[in-house]
Amino acid sequence: ELQALLNEFHYADIAEILDELNLEEAIYVIKLLDSETTSDVLTELDEDNREKVLKNLSAKEIAEEIEELDTDDAADIISELPEERQQEVISKIEDEEHKAEITELLTYDEDTAGGLMAKELVKVYETWTVAGCLRRIRGQAKEVTRVHSIYVVDKQEKLIGRLSLKDLIVAKNEKKIADIYISNVDYVKVHDDVEDVAKIMAKYDLEAIPVVDENQILLGRITIDDIVDVLKEEADKDYQLAAGITQDVEADDSIIELTRARLPWLVLGLVGGIGAFLIMEGFQESFKEKAILFFFTPLIAAMAGNVGVQSSAIIVQGLANNDVKGSINSRLIKEMLLATLNGMILAIFLFLFVWFYKGEFDKAIAISISLVVVIIVAGIIGTFVPLFLNKRGVDPAIATGPFITTSNDILGILLYFWIAELIIGLYN
Amino acid sequence: ELQALLNEFHYADIAEILDELNLEEAIYVIKLLDSETTSDVLTELDEDNREKVLKNLSAKEIAEEIEELDTDDAADIISELPEERQQEVISKIEDEEHKAEITELLTYDEDTAGGLMAKELVKVYETWTVAGCLRRIRGQAKEVTRVHSIYVVDKQEKLIGRLSLKDLIVAKNEKKIADIYISNVDYVKVHDDVEDVAKIMAKYDLEAIPVVDENQILLGRITIDDIVDVLKEEADKDYQLAAGITQDVEADDSIIELTRARLPWLVLGLVGGIGAFLIMEGFQESFKEKAILFFFTPLIAAMAGNVGVQSSAIIVQGLANNDVKGSINSRLIKEMLLATLNGMILAIFLFLFVWFYKGEFDKAIAISISLVVVIIVAGIIGTFVPLFLNKRGVDPAIATGPFITTSNDILGILLYFWIAELIIGLYN
Ligand SMILES: [Mg+2]
Ligand SMILES: [Mg+2]
Ligand SMILES: [Mg+2]
Ligand SMILES: [Mg+2]
Ligand SMILES: [Mg+2]
Ligand SMILES: [Mg+2]
Ligand SMILES: [Mg+2]
Ligand SMILES: [Mg+2]
Ligand SMILES: [Mg+2]
Ligand SMILES: [Mg+2]
Ligand SMILES: [Mg+2]
Ligand SMILES: [Mg+2]
Ligand SMILES: [Mg+2]
Repeated sequence: ELQALLNEFHYADIAEILDELNLEEAIYVIKLLDSETTSDVLTELDEDNREKVLKNLSAKEIAEEIEELDTDDAADIISELPEERQQEVISKIEDEEHKAEITELLTYDEDTAGGLMAKELVKVYETWTVAGCLRRIRGQAKEVTRVHSIYVVDKQEKLIGRLSLKDLIVAKNEKKIADIYISNVDYVKVHDDVEDVAKIMAKYDLEAIPVVDENQILLGRITIDDIVDVLKEEADKDYQLAAGITQDVEADDSIIELTRARLPWLVLGLVGGIGAFLIMEGFQESFKEKAILFFFTPLIAAMAGNVGVQSSAIIVQGLANNDVKGSINSRLIKEMLLATLNGMILAIFLFLFVWFYKGEFDKAIAISISLVVVIIVAGIIGTFVPLFLNKRGVDPAIATGPFITTSNDILGILLYFWIAELIIGLYN
Repeated sequence: ELQALLNEFHYADIAEILDELNLEEAIYVIKLLDSETTSDVLTELDEDNREKVLKNLSAKEIAEEIEELDTDDAADIISELPEERQQEVISKIEDEEHKAEITELLTYDEDTAGGLMAKELVKVYETWTVAGCLRRIRGQAKEVTRVHSIYVVDKQEKLIGRLSLKDLIVAKNEKKIADIYISNVDYVKVHDDVEDVAKIMAKYDLEAIPVVDENQILLGRITIDDIVDVLKEEADKDYQLAAGITQDVEADDSIIELTRARLPWLVLGLVGGIGAFLIMEGFQESFKEKAILFFFTPLIAAMAGNVGVQSSAIIVQGLANNDVKGSINSRLIKEMLLATLNGMILAIFLFLFVWFYKGEFDKAIAISISLVVVIIVAGIIGTFVPLFLNKRGVDPAIATGPFITTSNDILGILLYFWIAELIIGLYN
């Protein structure tokens, strides 16, 4: 029947099915599952759905699921509960060690190594022998799904090295760990940013990394599967920011949630548009007989916006990948050269169009020169704003998308009319 | 001296340093390195820099580096060489097995599982005993940096299951593999898309996955470190596409390369801008006495662009994460509701601004109603275009950014003038 069938599936697949069902159906299915599967399924559910399901479980029931989870997943689930509920659930966890470990993990910021690590790991003391190790590891390894490295600590619990299971199997039984461990061990500090942890693990191709405190005491370890999730979330967040979507939303979220994530940026665009209106109105008198100039404002705004987004995207990505080298000055000069080159090519096209199509040389010159200037300025702003934000410790990713587009729209249009006024003045 | 110092560093760090040096310096440093380090450093260099360095090595020297690399990295490096050079280098590889394996890997498309897999893995036959296994694994494991799973095959080399090193250590020596292996093994087909492989490995938290052919014959395995790189590259590519940057470029690439990646999208924007110009020119006569209407075109274009990018980004991301569910119709209806809600809120602001600031009720009505319609249409286009591209098998990621912005700019401006003409006509 359904029950037998479900327990054949992987918990990640069950979670995917549950995400499609309504709450009643989901609860019904969950009650059919093996106790062990339920907890894994819970960790894989969409956050919104998990919240709803957990509301339908008692503190005792949640605590029972928590008992079966690794400490990192357990802490994540508890941290999503309302404050009072958290205490209630924790108090119902029976395994005292598990309870203490989860309580510790809850103290770390979710964007830090501590927020991502699990307490489950295999640890040996340098004074142990290989044979003794193997014996005790059989015990520890039961709780640890994947061993990866075995971490070697000294008497003070300080991380001093690592060993692979393979090293241990190959070594002679009577050897001391102190004689065979590898002292060259990568680690991160508990308060390090998760994005930095991800960079280190990607760079050195690590599958797990130990986490230590200021005194080098081994606190936990982070595994690559959780880093893969972090990378995915970070990429999604940056992509959404660049598209003008603030909060973390998905295509299937409610209209209210989607509006909250999108409206602020649209309001910014509206304010920018009103700014552009006021600028054009200001130039109305100057160009009374030259209405054609007004017809190029969408072109100017579009080019300013596009160039700004291109430059800022390259910088934002370069900063994220640590490959923006050299000084801000050399960076700005490069962007200026690039913008000049692009701008000239585009300006020549535009010049030819206006001159041949409208036969007005002075306006063709005015518009083309403005275009070059606008593109250069847009490129500089696109480069400078993320670099500036980054120096100030603000995530430069917010600088791409609507923010740059809107400021470049207004500034571009303003510059355009100033320059056009100046150049056309020269011809008359 | 320098040599001793360098050999202390991790190869990924040395590669990072080399990427900063000029070619001569880089070659000088490379010659100082241990032979084993060199090959690893080569795999970690920036593609551009690797190309330059390899140009300075003879086919024999490259072949020597290749001998030391895992088959996946070896094949990647060879595939970057010019066609004739590839043959030359391959012919100089002395280890016949390594040569055959690399030659096989070169036949797979780089965006498929085959293009990412390595031939290095630990394989046991179901007929072997645990003791026999352990003995032979000691041999195989020497070539395999990290064992992860041990793959179990039948006499025909078909993948039938897996075992962990832990399972093997815990099992009694006289047991047969057939009695202890886990038949539930995840795998991918050699021609599967790498993005799908990444999704499977992320979903099931795998650190390695075996690759089989159509007949279930075990061909190789993919490890998570290479998937992490794929995820990073894909995210970077999508982010750049959304920002209007076609090719894979970095902040430090040359101005020519950057221009090639950026100019096409700017030309598209220019063409769009000229389109907008022609539309406005077409409405010049109709609105001779109502110049103020022209001053709202940047606002209309900006809103159309922003809404379009928001909708398409949500859809592109949803498609990438497989969470765009339900029919196209329900998706479009949802986007229409969302756009209507956002549009109404924004239109009320705009109406109040125009009415109070300019005191022109008819124009205020015309502009606000147009804004709502433009936003709804932009939302629909932003939703429909990526869905349509996806159905046609085109990567929907190209639909965000300049492509949507430009088409929405033009269509938005056109709609705006049509509607304004209609509504103002009603008042006169
Ligand atoms: Mg359970
Ligand atoms: Mg956590
Ligand atoms: Mg890597
Ligand atoms: Mg975990
Ligand atoms: Mg997980
Ligand atoms: Mg980020
Ligand atoms: Mg070498
Ligand atoms: Mg490859
Ligand atoms: Mg996962
Ligand atoms: Mg590899
Ligand atoms: Mg690698
Ligand atoms: Mg993609
Ligand atoms: Mg725009």
